[in-house]
Amino acid sequence: MSRQSRVIIENVYPEIDNGRYYIKRVLGESVTVEADIFGDGHDVVAGALLYKHQDSKKWKETRFSPTENDRWIATFRVEKQEIYHYKIQGWVDYALNWQHNIERKIQAEQYVNVELLDGVQYLEKLLKNAGSKHHQHIKYLIGLFKDEQRYEEAIQEALSDRLHDLFVEYPTKDFAVTYDNNLRVYVDRKKALFSTWYEFFPRSASEEAGKHGTFKDCERLIPRIAAMGFDVLYFPPIHPIGEVNRKGKNNTTEAFEGDVGSPWGIGSKHGGHKDIHPELGTIDDFKNLIKIANDYGVEIAMDYALQCAPDHPYVKEHPQWFRWRPDGSVQYAENPPKKYQDILPIYFETEDWENLWNELLDIALYWVKQGIRIFRVDNPHTKPFQFWEWLIANVKKDYPDVLFLSEAFTRPRVMHELAKVGFTQSYTYYTWRNFRHEILEYMEELSNSKGAEYFRPNFWPNTPDINPYSLQGGKESIFLMRYFMAATLSSNYGMYGPVFEYMIHAAVPGKEEYLDSEKYQIQHWDWNQTNKMTHLITMINHIRRDNEALQFTRNITLCDTDNESLFAYYKETEDKSNQLLMIVNLDPYNRQSGWIKTPLNLIGVNEGEPIIMHDLITQSSYTWNSEWNFVEIDPNSPFHLFQIRRPKVYRSGNGYQHPS
Amino acid sequence: MSRQSRVIIENVYPEIDNGRYYIKRVLGESVTVEADIFGDGHDVVAGALLYKHQDSKKWKETRFSPTENDRWIATFRVEKQEIYHYKIQGWVDYALNWQHNIERKIQAEQYVNVELLDGVQYLEKLLKNAGSKHHQHIKYLIGLFKDEQRYEEAIQEALSDRLHDLFVEYPTKDFAVTYDNNLRVYVDRKKALFSTWYEFFPRSASEEAGKHGTFKDCERLIPRIAAMGFDVLYFPPIHPIGEVNRKGKNNTTEAFEGDVGSPWGIGSKHGGHKDIHPELGTIDDFKNLIKIANDYGVEIAMDYALQCAPDHPYVKEHPQWFRWRPDGSVQYAENPPKKYQDILPIYFETEDWENLWNELLDIALYWVKQGIRIFRVDNPHTKPFQFWEWLIANVKKDYPDVLFLSEAFTRPRVMHELAKVGFTQSYTYYTWRNFRHEILEYMEELSNSKGAEYFRPNFWPNTPDINPYSLQGGKESIFLMRYFMAATLSSNYGMYGPVFEYMIHAAVPGKEEYLDSEKYQIQHWDWNQTNKMTHLITMINHIRRDNEALQFTRNITLCDTDNESLFAYYKETEDKSNQLLMIVNLDPYNRQSGWIKTPLNLIGVNEGEPIIMHDLITQSSYTWNSEWNFVEIDPNSPFHLFQIRRPKVYRSGNGYQHPS
Repeated sequence: MSRQSRVIIENVYPEIDNGRYYIKRVLGESVTVEADIFGDGHDVVAGALLYKHQDSKKWKETRFSPTENDRWIATFRVEKQEIYHYKIQGWVDYALNWQHNIERKIQAEQYVNVELLDGVQYLEKLLKNAGSKHHQHIKYLIGLFKDEQRYEEAIQEALSDRLHDLFVEYPTKDFAVTYDNNLRVYVDRKKALFSTWYEFFPRSASEEAGKHGTFKDCERLIPRIAAMGFDVLYFPPIHPIGEVNRKGKNNTTEAFEGDVGSPWGIGSKHGGHKDIHPELGTIDDFKNLIKIANDYGVEIAMDYALQCAPDHPYVKEHPQWFRWRPDGSVQYAENPPKKYQDILPIYFETEDWENLWNELLDIALYWVKQGIRIFRVDNPHTKPFQFWEWLIANVKKDYPDVLFLSEAFTRPRVMHELAKVGFTQSYTYYTWRNFRHEILEYMEELSNSKGAEYFRPNFWPNTPDINPYSLQGGKESIFLMRYFMAATLSSNYGMYGPVFEYMIHAAVPGKEEYLDSEKYQIQHWDWNQTNKMTHLITMINHIRRDNEALQFTRNITLCDTDNESLFAYYKETEDKSNQLLMIVNLDPYNRQSGWIKTPLNLIGVNEGEPIIMHDLITQSSYTWNSEWNFVEIDPNSPFHLFQIRRPKVYRSGNGYQHPS
Repeated sequence: MSRQSRVIIENVYPEIDNGRYYIKRVLGESVTVEADIFGDGHDVVAGALLYKHQDSKKWKETRFSPTENDRWIATFRVEKQEIYHYKIQGWVDYALNWQHNIERKIQAEQYVNVELLDGVQYLEKLLKNAGSKHHQHIKYLIGLFKDEQRYEEAIQEALSDRLHDLFVEYPTKDFAVTYDNNLRVYVDRKKALFSTWYEFFPRSASEEAGKHGTFKDCERLIPRIAAMGFDVLYFPPIHPIGEVNRKGKNNTTEAFEGDVGSPWGIGSKHGGHKDIHPELGTIDDFKNLIKIANDYGVEIAMDYALQCAPDHPYVKEHPQWFRWRPDGSVQYAENPPKKYQDILPIYFETEDWENLWNELLDIALYWVKQGIRIFRVDNPHTKPFQFWEWLIANVKKDYPDVLFLSEAFTRPRVMHELAKVGFTQSYTYYTWRNFRHEILEYMEELSNSKGAEYFRPNFWPNTPDINPYSLQGGKESIFLMRYFMAATLSSNYGMYGPVFEYMIHAAVPGKEEYLDSEKYQIQHWDWNQTNKMTHLITMINHIRRDNEALQFTRNITLCDTDNESLFAYYKETEDKSNQLLMIVNLDPYNRQSGWIKTPLNLIGVNEGEPIIMHDLITQSSYTWNSEWNFVEIDPNSPFHLFQIRRPKVYRSGNGYQHPS
C-alpha cells in the first residue's frame, strides 16, 4: 500500500475467520459482499469488488454502491464449480471528487474557470484509460475547459452525466488500497443445496419375510422412491459386518445365532471398508443398482463410517492405527459407563497418521470410482477437523461433484467447525425443535447469521438413531406437521423410511430409540402400502421441484402471527418469480385460527392491492389485500402452502383496471 | 501445528481486525480474553493464555476457565507501559482425560486395573515435567498403580484432587495449538483514562480589558484551575497567527486593524509550528508556565493543528507540501460553497510525503522536548490515517507518556479508525446526546462493544466550536445536568471555560457558534467570579479523585427506571471497594420522581439486605433494602451521586446482628 493511500477497507462480510475458511454457494447463486470503505476528510471514495474463478487468470470487476454509514455493497454471481476468489479495492476518486466540488461551487454561483482548468488533469488521465471511441469527446472537452470564451458550455459538460459515467467507468485508482484476506467461495453443484433424501436398510428390502435383503431386492424399490420424489437414496454401511462382539437385537451385548449385527460395526473376515457385505450381493450388483437409480434420477449416497469391528482386517494389518491397552487388548469405543465392544475407534494420534490418512482417502476414492458422488459421514465429530479438511479437499480436487453430509449431532461449535472445514451439508437440531420460538430462533440462526454462509442444514424428522419423543405418541397430525416443516423450511431434507412414512413409533421405553431397531435386525415391510403421509410426501416433493423458492434455505422470512400456535414463513426466489407463504398449525389437537402478517414489501405489493393465495396442496385460492390476513387451520391437514399469484388485471398508475 | 492436533481456537475476543490494531489499557487494568476452544469428540480440553511485556523475553501463563458452550475466559493484568503481547494455547489434556474417564468408570463400579496401568504413562510424563519436590510422590503413585494388591488405595489416589492439581499444573500439552494473530495491548499511563480538562484562550487571560493576554497572565490562573480540580490545561494554538486573509471578529472574511485572527490560522513572518505567537510571550515564558502548572498538578496540553496560514514559512520553503491551482495560486481550504482563505490544507498526496511526515513529527518532538506530554489534535480526520499511525507510534516509541486527543467530530467509522491507529482519547457525540434513550444507547456503545477496547471517550459539554443548542437557552439546570453527566459518565471529560462555568450562551443565530467567539477576538473575564457551577465543578472533580469508580468509563451499568425523565447508572471498581449510583433528572423544568432498579447482584447484596446510599454532594444518607427504590429530584439540583455503603452491622449466616 502506498504511503499516500487514504482509504480504509474493514469489516468485510462475508469473511470467515479472516479468510481461513471459504463460504459456500451452489451454481448460479449470488454472493453479496459488504464492507466499510472510507477515507479521511470528505473526498469522494469509490470501491470495486474483484472476483475470479480459480481457473481464470483475469479478475472481473463490479463496483460497490454505498448504503449508509460508510458501508458499501456489491454482488457477483458464481457460474462454475469449485473456488472463486474475491477481494476489495478502494480509492479516493479524485476525478469524481473534482466533479462533485465543481457542481457544489456552481450551485453556489461561484465562478469556476480555474476549477475547469484544474479538471483538465483528470481529462488527460481519462484519455489514457478510456477506450478509443471516447478519445474524440475527451479531447474536445480538454479544449473546451481551456477556452474561457465557452465558459457556459464548459460548465454544462463539466456537470454532465456523460462525463460522470466516463469517470466511473475508467477510474485511475490512484493510491488504491486492496483488501485480500484470501476470501473464497466454494461453489458446489446444485444438489449441495437442494436435495431430498430417503434412507432405508437394504437388508430389509426382501419381499420374503425373514430373508436378508439384497441389492437386487433394492432395484425393485427404486421406482417407488423416485415416484415419491426423492433424489438421494442413502444406505447405512454396506460393508461386511463384524462377527466378534457383534450386537444382538435391541442393542444387547450378546448376539445369538442368526443375529445380523449393526452395519456400523464394519469389517470381518469378509473384508473391510472397500468390500461389500456378502449377503447384500456383489460389487457388480451394487454398481448395477447405482446405474438403475441414476436412470430414475436418484443418486445413491454411501455411509462413510470410520470405525472398525474387532475383526476388521486393519486391526491385524495396521495395529498402529488402534490403541492398545496395557494388558495387550485393543481399545474399544467407550463413553463411560457405556462400552461399545463391537467397535474400535481409529487412533488418529498415531505416529503413522500419514499412511492412515492416505488409506482413508483411498476408501473414499474407491467408492467414487464405483460411481458414488454423495457420502453421508458417520460421527465426523469424533475424528479430527484437520483430517476432514484434508480429506474433503483431496476428494473434491478431482471430483468436485462429490458431496459430504456431516452426521454430527453434537455441540454447536463443533457442528459449525465441521461445516467450515468443508462438509457440504449438516444434520441439525431440527429433530428437537418443536415449539414456535425454538423453530423461529433456529431458522434465524440458520438463515441469517454468518454461519449461514458455510453451514447448509439438512432437516430430518427422524433417523435410525432418533425416534423423537414428539413422534412416539404416533399422532398423525404431528407426523404431518414435522414432515411438512422439514421439507419446506430447509431445501435439503431427508427421512428414514419406511419407518417414517408408515408412522412407526414404538420406542425403547424412555429413550429416543426405535424398538426392534433395524440397526440390529432385519425388518419386513409391505412397501406397497400407501397412506396420507406417502401421498403428502409425493405431493410436497413435486411441489419442491416445481417451486424454486423451496430450493433455497437462506431465502426465508419469518412472519408475525397473533397466535403462538401458528407458524408462518415466506420464501421467494431472488428474481421474485416464485413466492410462497407457508403456514403451520403447531397444535396437533385443536383447530387454530389467527392473523398472519404478510411481508408485502418483499412480495412487492402495497397495502390494499390484491394478491391471490393459491394453496398448492388443496388447489384452493383466496384473495388477500391487506397486510394482516386471517387463517384457520385444522390439525388433520395442519398447513397451507400458498403460492402467491397476481390477479389477472393490469396495473395502471396507482389504481387497477381490468384487461380491456 | 501438528497434523495430530485436534483442538480449534476461534472467535477470540478482544481481537481488533485480526490483530491489525492493538487494544488499549492503562497501568493496572486487567485484560479479559475470551475464545472458543474445543476439540473433536469428548476428550478433556485445556487452554492457556500467554502474555508478556514487549521488553520481556519470557511468556507468563494463566489458564483458561470454561464458561458455557465451549467458550473460555482468562484474565491478566498490565503493570508496565507500552505493548503487551498475548496469545492462546489449546490442547487435548490426555492426562486429565484419563482421570475423568477412570472416575466415571469407578462411579459405574467397573473394575479399572487396566486403566490404572494405562495411567502410568501420564505419571511418567508428569515425572519429567513436575518440580523435583513432587518426584517422590509421583514415583510412589507409579508403583501403586502397578500393584494390583493395593487396588483400593490406587483408585483413591487416581481420583485425588492432588493428582488432578499436578496434572493441571504440569500439562504435557501434546499436539498443542497456538492462536497468535499478533494480539497486542497498548498500555498507557493512568491519565489516558482518567483526566479532567480545562480549555481557555491565553490571549483572554489579561487582567486589563482589551489587552492581549500572555503566558505570564496565565500563571495567575493556574491556582484557580488546580483548585477547581482540573489536571489538564489545554490551550488553542499558541503559534504566530497568519496575517494574510486573517479572519475578522465573528468569522468575517475581512479583518480590521487590531483584529487578532484565529489561532488555528498558523504561521506568519514571526514563524510557524515551532514558534510562539510574540504577543503571548517567549518560549521561556511558556516553559516556565509548564513548570508552574506541573507544580500544581496540571499538565499543559498543546494543540497540534496541521494547517498553515498563507504566510506560513512552509509555503515558501516547501511549496510542494501544498496544492497549487492552474492559475498559480495556492489552494486554500474549502468545503463548497464555504471558503477558508486564511487556511491552507497540507497536501498529503505530495511526492515529497516523506520529508513532510518527518517535519510534522519533528514539530511534535520539538514540543515534547519543551515539556509537553499531551496533544489535542485538531481535525485529525482530514489527514491520512496512515500518517497518524506512523506519527503516534514514532512519538510514543521514545516518549510513551505522550497522549493524543483526537478532535474529530465526524462519521462513526472515521472516529473509530483514528482511535484504532493510536489516538489515546477521542472527542465524542456526547455534546449532542440529550434524551435518555440517546445517552443510554451511546453509553452502551462506548462501554460494551468491541470499540470500547480501543476508543477512549472524552466528554465535552461545550467547545469553542460548539455552543450546543441545548445550552443556548441559558437554563442553569441544563448546564448543571450536562456538566454532571459529562463528569460522571466518562472518566475523561473537559470543558471550554470560563465560558462554560459562567454559563455564557449567546449564539450566532441559528448556529451552534458562540457570539463574539474567542476564536476571532480577545475576551475579558472576571476570573474571580464564583457561582453554583464553579462550586459544583470543584466538588465533582474532588469526588472524582476520591472515588476510583469514576476513573473508568467501561465500568458502567445502566439502570432501569420507570420514569423516562430519570437516568440512572452505576459504576464500581473491579474489587468493588468503591460503588456509586448516579441518578439524573433530565427534565430541566419539573421535579421528577420514580423508581430506580438497583443492580443488587453487582453491589453484592440480596433483596432485603440494607445498603446506605450516601449522597456525596448533599452528604445526606438513605437506607435502601429493595431492588427498586423511589427517588424524587428537583431540577435545581438535578442529580444524586450516591456512594454505596454497608450499614455498621456484622453479617452472620443469612441474618444480621448488631455489633456486640
